[in-house]
Amino acid sequence: MIKVSVVGAKGRMGSHVVEAVNAADDMELALTLDAGDDLTQITPVNTDVVVEFTVPSQSLNNVLTLVGQGVDVVVGTTGWTEDKLNQVREAVAAQQSVFIAPNFAISAVLADYFARVAAPYFESVEVLEMHHPDKVDAPSGTAIHTAQGIAASRKAAGLGPVPDNTQTDGGSRGQVVDGIHVHAVRLRGLNAHEEVLFGNAGEQLVLRADSFDRTSFMPGVLLAVRKVESGEFPGVTVGLDNFLDL
Amino acid sequence: MIKVSVVGAKGRMGSHVVEAVNAADDMELALTLDAGDDLTQITPVNTDVVVEFTVPSQSLNNVLTLVGQGVDVVVGTTGWTEDKLNQVREAVAAQQSVFIAPNFAISAVLADYFARVAAPYFESVEVLEMHHPDKVDAPSGTAIHTAQGIAASRKAAGLGPVPDNTQTDGGSRGQVVDGIHVHAVRLRGLNAHEEVLFGNAGEQLVLRADSFDRTSFMPGVLLAVRKVESGEFPGVTVGLDNFLDL
Amino acid sequence: MIKVSVVGAKGRMGSHVVEAVNAADDMELALTLDAGDDLTQITPVNTDVVVEFTVPSQSLNNVLTLVGQGVDVVVGTTGWTEDKLNQVREAVAAQQSVFIAPNFAISAVLADYFARVAAPYFESVEVLEMHHPDKVDAPSGTAIHTAQGIAASRKAAGLGPVPDNTQTDGGSRGQVVDGIHVHAVRLRGLNAHEEVLFGNAGEQLVLRADSFDRTSFMPGVLLAVRKVESGEFPGVTVGLDNFLDL
Amino acid sequence: MIKVSVVGAKGRMGSHVVEAVNAADDMELALTLDAGDDLTQITPVNTDVVVEFTVPSQSLNNVLTLVGQGVDVVVGTTGWTEDKLNQVREAVAAQQSVFIAPNFAISAVLADYFARVAAPYFESVEVLEMHHPDKVDAPSGTAIHTAQGIAASRKAAGLGPVPDNTQTDGGSRGQVVDGIHVHAVRLRGLNAHEEVLFGNAGEQLVLRADSFDRTSFMPGVLLAVRKVESGEFPGVTVGLDNFLDL
Repeated sequence: MIKVSVVGAKGRMGSHVVEAVNAADDMELALTLDAGDDLTQITPVNTDVVVEFTVPSQSLNNVLTLVGQGVDVVVGTTGWTEDKLNQVREAVAAQQSVFIAPNFAISAVLADYFARVAAPYFESVEVLEMHHPDKVDAPSGTAIHTAQGIAASRKAAGLGPVPDNTQTDGGSRGQVVDGIHVHAVRLRGLNAHEEVLFGNAGEQLVLRADSFDRTSFMPGVLLAVRKVESGEFPGVTVGLDNFLDL
Repeated sequence: MIKVSVVGAKGRMGSHVVEAVNAADDMELALTLDAGDDLTQITPVNTDVVVEFTVPSQSLNNVLTLVGQGVDVVVGTTGWTEDKLNQVREAVAAQQSVFIAPNFAISAVLADYFARVAAPYFESVEVLEMHHPDKVDAPSGTAIHTAQGIAASRKAAGLGPVPDNTQTDGGSRGQVVDGIHVHAVRLRGLNAHEEVLFGNAGEQLVLRADSFDRTSFMPGVLLAVRKVESGEFPGVTVGLDNFLDL
Repeated sequence: MIKVSVVGAKGRMGSHVVEAVNAADDMELALTLDAGDDLTQITPVNTDVVVEFTVPSQSLNNVLTLVGQGVDVVVGTTGWTEDKLNQVREAVAAQQSVFIAPNFAISAVLADYFARVAAPYFESVEVLEMHHPDKVDAPSGTAIHTAQGIAASRKAAGLGPVPDNTQTDGGSRGQVVDGIHVHAVRLRGLNAHEEVLFGNAGEQLVLRADSFDRTSFMPGVLLAVRKVESGEFPGVTVGLDNFLDL
Repeated sequence: MIKVSVVGAKGRMGSHVVEAVNAADDMELALTLDAGDDLTQITPVNTDVVVEFTVPSQSLNNVLTLVGQGVDVVVGTTGWTEDKLNQVREAVAAQQSVFIAPNFAISAVLADYFARVAAPYFESVEVLEMHHPDKVDAPSGTAIHTAQGIAASRKAAGLGPVPDNTQTDGGSRGQVVDGIHVHAVRLRGLNAHEEVLFGNAGEQLVLRADSFDRTSFMPGVLLAVRKVESGEFPGVTVGLDNFLDL
């Protein structure tokens, strides 16, 4: 049994992590701490892996403290810069593992990866993302990342621009990211969804990732806990794709 | 058996009409004429209904000649203006039927109709159309028509604008037609496709019409032939929705 | 402002109704009652419409009591038989309205209706439903209802059986309901989804209704409250389609 | 320029190959032969690669003859057994390449591959295939292959059976292939389509491959011609996935 403590246990994500750990057959919940609690209560005696979901302004300090306590850490808080990552890299011990991910949704990470693999083999490709209408930015960072990956993959394969004979358009063709058209739909009822359409003469390949709610990140968090605890990934690892056998 | 003659029988659409009439149990192929042939060969003796698929510059003359011959006519040629329609309306006899449609794809006509019916019941709605990359205009005329119908339906129901808190966007949110966001995808392998997404808290309704190739128009053409021949639609009728029991 | 009381206010559905009423601009929350509470607290003085979401064994008694109190009622509890409905029909006063619905999801009700309208115009049609893997029955009652409606519509239009030249199959072609093939998918992450595929030569029409969570029923509940309170539907009305302008 | 000859040039597939070769910038059409023609007209002087699309009863002899002529061969004819493959393996020269594929649709081959890669990371998975109603077998061989690959991938990763609490079903849950539920839809208007749905709590990944018509195989055929001509794949290679950088 992996002993898992949660920092930010009462937060929107942290409370789901507590539930997910309780439901996992191979894990047991250790300490659940929140803002104001003393993180030095967490030690290798009571905890194998800590999951940290707090806020960007506190996360670096939390992670440095936890590293100092000698436990492994899975970090879901966003806002990590290269400078912050380097501070963690310097602090982490030889046999210790810290994992940080911008996105824990396995389906989204796989779709992003598959899109880069498929890109060289299709004449056409476009990216659609669909989110709830309260999202303030468009397109999503994930969609931009996917489009950039596709563009890089096409370039490496020597492909030219996608075919497009559109002569009159009032904006319906979307935003062009590195030559790839990206469309953003905002619709009440949806959460976070991405679709990549690839086309050749007579055929289409569609990759679609749906995140219906916050529980969608839990399988990725549990996977990260298991991988970090395995000892196979010493040091600082960034990105869930490192834990998928791709 | 309905005796059907085809004008423009060697054209892209006309040749499919010839095949479809031959395959229909309740129809028999009468005359097949093309550019340069004498249309006065067509008479009520040999023909019940003529299907005319030629070019905009010839269609009005063809239809007036056929009306003068005393037969019913189904017209698939585009480019009809109100002025041209009026010339046919004046020429048509009391018991004669002429039918003209901008779109014979039953799935597209139904999706367009369903979209107007559903519109009052959803907070959010967006329209996507997907076509082959050789299409020169974007968005499609059909998508604009659908968006306008949705907008009119929402207005009649007293709905306000769709929710959208997007604050930064480089074009991914598409073209706004009467307040409705319309997105156009261009992808090799596709033909003509439309998707309407409706959303409320916790739910989504999707309407999608796919036209894979020109044979998609044949069920609509055959339906029109039967309706015109039934005598229930004297005069000039415009739009396939008139022949659907909606 | 419509004064709305909720019976079963602490239940899974009732608690969402309380939230939805509080969020609606044209409604105010009156009494929130639960098992053991005295329903005669509810009177026309404090309440215009009661929403009742309890359990089948209590619902009839609750509704009869509420009808006796002289208020309008929207019933979301399932398990209504023709005999139970008749008891309510006899009890309801001339100017009183009671509404009962097996399904409050507007998208599902519309998809079911659109399927019956579209059915006469397509050679092929199949029904897919997709639910979470904890659902004990397959296919869903909604999918069976949709298939039956399609079959009746095809029969009324004189259509024969759907084309199907399958000669060897180990069960992949699904369950046949009144001649219509119905497929049931069970997938973790999904909630309740239905898709109807219609096909003709060269074309496809897809109708899809997604219910992502229980909030998907709230727009339908609020619509019913408004319709019941309008006084336009005296007596007992069954089915949300009666409140949609179809 | 790669000099490409086509054997079976007047057949349904072969005629598309002739068109595709003519349209390719890096290829030129050499000889086009058909039943009854002398294959020994094809030599390394006039031909770099032969594409053979004939019938199972003739294909082995054709390929052996072509191998004897000293040219590289891409074979699209089906019906290859291990015994037939061995005869070609023995005949092929050291620097010669023969490629045989059961499926040239790149989108289908990629979806099949991606399904095996994704399988270990999801609790649930089901396979749907959709074809025209004249297909005599169900489910498709491709869908069975995909389900088997998914099952093997899950087993290798130590996953148990997919969750399914269905207690009453009249066949809607489909055919179970190695523990994976497979559904087959037959719909006029469709050609050949496959969809794989993966699910975890709160998330879904969808892989979909659409083959709209026979031209969908041409990008795969042209890719195979280029790979075979490159000399990087001496001997007999089976399966298009060998030519994709996966």
